[in-house]
Amino acid sequence: MFESAEIGRSVEKKEYEKSVETLRARILTAQLGLARTGLNLVIVVGGVEGSGKTDVARRMLGWMDARGLHVESFTDHSDEEEERPRYWRYWRTLPGAGHGAILVGSWYTKPIVRRAFKEIGEGDFDRALDRVIAFETMLVREKTVLVKLWLHLSKKAQKRRFKELEADPDTAWRVTKQDWAFAKKYDRFRDVCERALAKTGVAEAPWTLVDAADWRWRNLAAGGAVADALERALAETAKRAPKPHLDPAKPPKLSVLSRLDLSRSFKGDYDKKLDKQQTRVALLSRRLRKEGRSLICAFEGVDAAGKGGAIRRLLNALDVRNARVMTVAAPTDEELAHPYLWRFWRQLPRVGKTTIYDRSWYGRVLVERVEGFAAPGDWQRAYAEISSFEEELAEAGVIVCKFWLQISQHEQLKRFKERGKTPYKQYKITEDDWRNRDKWDAYQAAALEMIEKTSTPDAPWTLVEGEDKRWARIKVVESVADRLEQELG
Amino acid sequence: MFESAEIGRSVEKKEYEKSVETLRARILTAQLGLARTGLNLVIVVGGVEGSGKTDVARRMLGWMDARGLHVESFTDHSDEEEERPRYWRYWRTLPGAGHGAILVGSWYTKPIVRRAFKEIGEGDFDRALDRVIAFETMLVREKTVLVKLWLHLSKKAQKRRFKELEADPDTAWRVTKQDWAFAKKYDRFRDVCERALAKTGVAEAPWTLVDAADWRWRNLAAGGAVADALERALAETAKRAPKPHLDPAKPPKLSVLSRLDLSRSFKGDYDKKLDKQQTRVALLSRRLRKEGRSLICAFEGVDAAGKGGAIRRLLNALDVRNARVMTVAAPTDEELAHPYLWRFWRQLPRVGKTTIYDRSWYGRVLVERVEGFAAPGDWQRAYAEISSFEEELAEAGVIVCKFWLQISQHEQLKRFKERGKTPYKQYKITEDDWRNRDKWDAYQAAALEMIEKTSTPDAPWTLVEGEDKRWARIKVVESVADRLEQELG
Repeated sequence: MFESAEIGRSVEKKEYEKSVETLRARILTAQLGLARTGLNLVIVVGGVEGSGKTDVARRMLGWMDARGLHVESFTDHSDEEEERPRYWRYWRTLPGAGHGAILVGSWYTKPIVRRAFKEIGEGDFDRALDRVIAFETMLVREKTVLVKLWLHLSKKAQKRRFKELEADPDTAWRVTKQDWAFAKKYDRFRDVCERALAKTGVAEAPWTLVDAADWRWRNLAAGGAVADALERALAETAKRAPKPHLDPAKPPKLSVLSRLDLSRSFKGDYDKKLDKQQTRVALLSRRLRKEGRSLICAFEGVDAAGKGGAIRRLLNALDVRNARVMTVAAPTDEELAHPYLWRFWRQLPRVGKTTIYDRSWYGRVLVERVEGFAAPGDWQRAYAEISSFEEELAEAGVIVCKFWLQISQHEQLKRFKERGKTPYKQYKITEDDWRNRDKWDAYQAAALEMIEKTSTPDAPWTLVEGEDKRWARIKVVESVADRLEQELG
Repeated sequence: MFESAEIGRSVEKKEYEKSVETLRARILTAQLGLARTGLNLVIVVGGVEGSGKTDVARRMLGWMDARGLHVESFTDHSDEEEERPRYWRYWRTLPGAGHGAILVGSWYTKPIVRRAFKEIGEGDFDRALDRVIAFETMLVREKTVLVKLWLHLSKKAQKRRFKELEADPDTAWRVTKQDWAFAKKYDRFRDVCERALAKTGVAEAPWTLVDAADWRWRNLAAGGAVADALERALAETAKRAPKPHLDPAKPPKLSVLSRLDLSRSFKGDYDKKLDKQQTRVALLSRRLRKEGRSLICAFEGVDAAGKGGAIRRLLNALDVRNARVMTVAAPTDEELAHPYLWRFWRQLPRVGKTTIYDRSWYGRVLVERVEGFAAPGDWQRAYAEISSFEEELAEAGVIVCKFWLQISQHEQLKRFKERGKTPYKQYKITEDDWRNRDKWDAYQAAALEMIEKTSTPDAPWTLVEGEDKRWARIKVVESVADRLEQELG
């Protein structure tokens, strides 16, 4: 693959200056279109050491409007990053609508280096690349113009470059011991990178291979790729118009939800039983920090299914200093300007902490699907995106518990009426609640598909018979205790 | 002061339960009002060890709607916190409009403990308390309902409490060595706390002293204070309506701005001189990380004053991986839901990094003042708030450079017309720009007052004659180099 980037193309100074002028005007004009269309720009600058990744980043920043644009490089993890899934540091640098990021180094660096030094096998390497593909595909579908530049130098050219840099006292510091260490393994890196590029050069996120032997040629090729990608994306946006529509799905007569025995009710000493389960959760959750783990509990269910009550019982069992309840309502404008899951990534708990979600990232395949807020293509891909998200959480040691609270239509009506009677509960019932009742079937169908597609060993759904509140609350707290016990051993 | 909280009041179980019911309804009803009025709630729970601060936090969380409410405790700094000013960790936990935070421990803890152990003298202690007052006053004026609870136990009651806890195997872990160490210094702590409470119990942010010997009395007193504060704030909001109005200020004939010699222009080899100054900045800025410092440069000036061009020359001198340009435009809704300076606190650079602001926090006393977006009371208090902000930056080792770029009205018009001719510069000129020209005098007057009130040794304004772009750019880059040299030695 790399042969095509070793044929020694170069550009003369005069031609370069002329080309830059045209190119710059193209890029700047296109950059302006970003804000108008709600797109954002991510430029990944990868490549061999000595190829001038940082120089390219500097050039791009100079050519573009630096406002709303930032360069990121990824060196050591901060401890706040260490305590979260690996991709957290990338999520937190994602630009919002209209903005851009130039990444020197990226999610490719670590897998490639580890594979080159044989710290991971082929299987794990491919797995890491699959994650990359999933992440990049998501970005592109979430309005990112993704430009991936790979700057290449032949073995000879790299060596020459290092020697040149070392010869000049002003630039000698730029060649590090690590550079030479990597250069020694040039052939090995070449093979690993070739595999990485071949596998991740998918249609949605192709690579632009740049011959970096001549810096003028390199800069023009890089800038040209950015201009092309921006212009193409803007032209496509002009055509595309997402068409959300209401989903008339009906749930099947027989399903995991219809089979729930809603007549179940709690018998016995409720306070004693609840206290026992809460104590279990209290003792187990205190071990999270020491074990390097954290806990996320997500609650879903129709209005008045009892999410709030169950959450309060669970919260009572936790150290309030380490627990937080997040309510998922309408996203803020910053959240809207980012990919759908960004709002959840940004809130991920640190080690030892617990976050309880009153409604969650499943809104995409529930309310947004049923109410037509998301186009079918968008909520359909969400199943895979969510599973990937939860897999990353599990890998990072986050324990994920998901609860679906099920009640009957009859019980819901009864609870709505009750709420109207208690002054400080009245706020809980809004016109939306009554409207949503009309869509009962559609919500049940959406819930069923969600449960089917997103129950994984790492993050299973617990279905809770919610008709009797006591039954439901005990079941929730007990399930969390069981899960903690299983995970913490 | 504390005698009044040692008279041994208590509540019987039955009375307690009845009172809780009324209290809870009051608090919940008031909590609902927060979102409606755009207020937020911060409950500071301070007090002696063993008084049950966490218990009170748990109780409040249980009584209120836990959604949108979170409990924070402040233990060790993360490394991301270490690399920023001391209050950064508090700013990042501030709740947005409609939300609330319960803080177990707070900005009081460290000064009190350090003073009690004589690590700081009286002067530094008072200085820390002054900062507290400034911070809290700002919060209250920025729509925070601030409730400060101080839970008190007499020396005897504290000892009794620790022994009780230690006697029960379920609670023995809660009494730490540190608790006993603090208890030994009870009298010393008492004096220090008394001073802290007396000094910081200002009208805007009074303390509620709670007798914590009886837990029922303690909870009711704490809850009552929260309910009272919420109800009072809601009632006041109903009355108050901020009245922004246009500011007809005119600048004096003779001023530091009028005295600038705008005929100054750069003579000599511009490229060589610029390169020399950029190299100085490049070499100096590389030392920031090692010295534990960071750099913030803020640019202000009328439209077309040359901010963008100067910023680009400065950026060229920096390692792009460590530098970022922030453009200050309309705040996002999350930013609007927080105190004015929150958007700048959240972006503070880590050690070794540079942030360049194209317009800055001075917008409050410039555009917001002149256009009437901020009420007079709000922009007037901003001078002190901004000075305090910059003082905190300086204390944390952040080097702050501020530039005012001055051009004549004539030159501005010329530049507007030029912009219209270059395709990729056209976007730079909008209708707003033409409109702002009409307010030239008002902007000049606002700038003058700003320069006068916020030039401090830590963060001086550099006034730049902007008529000749080359002169201005050299002066900016050279000033940054000089400043870095002076600060880094």
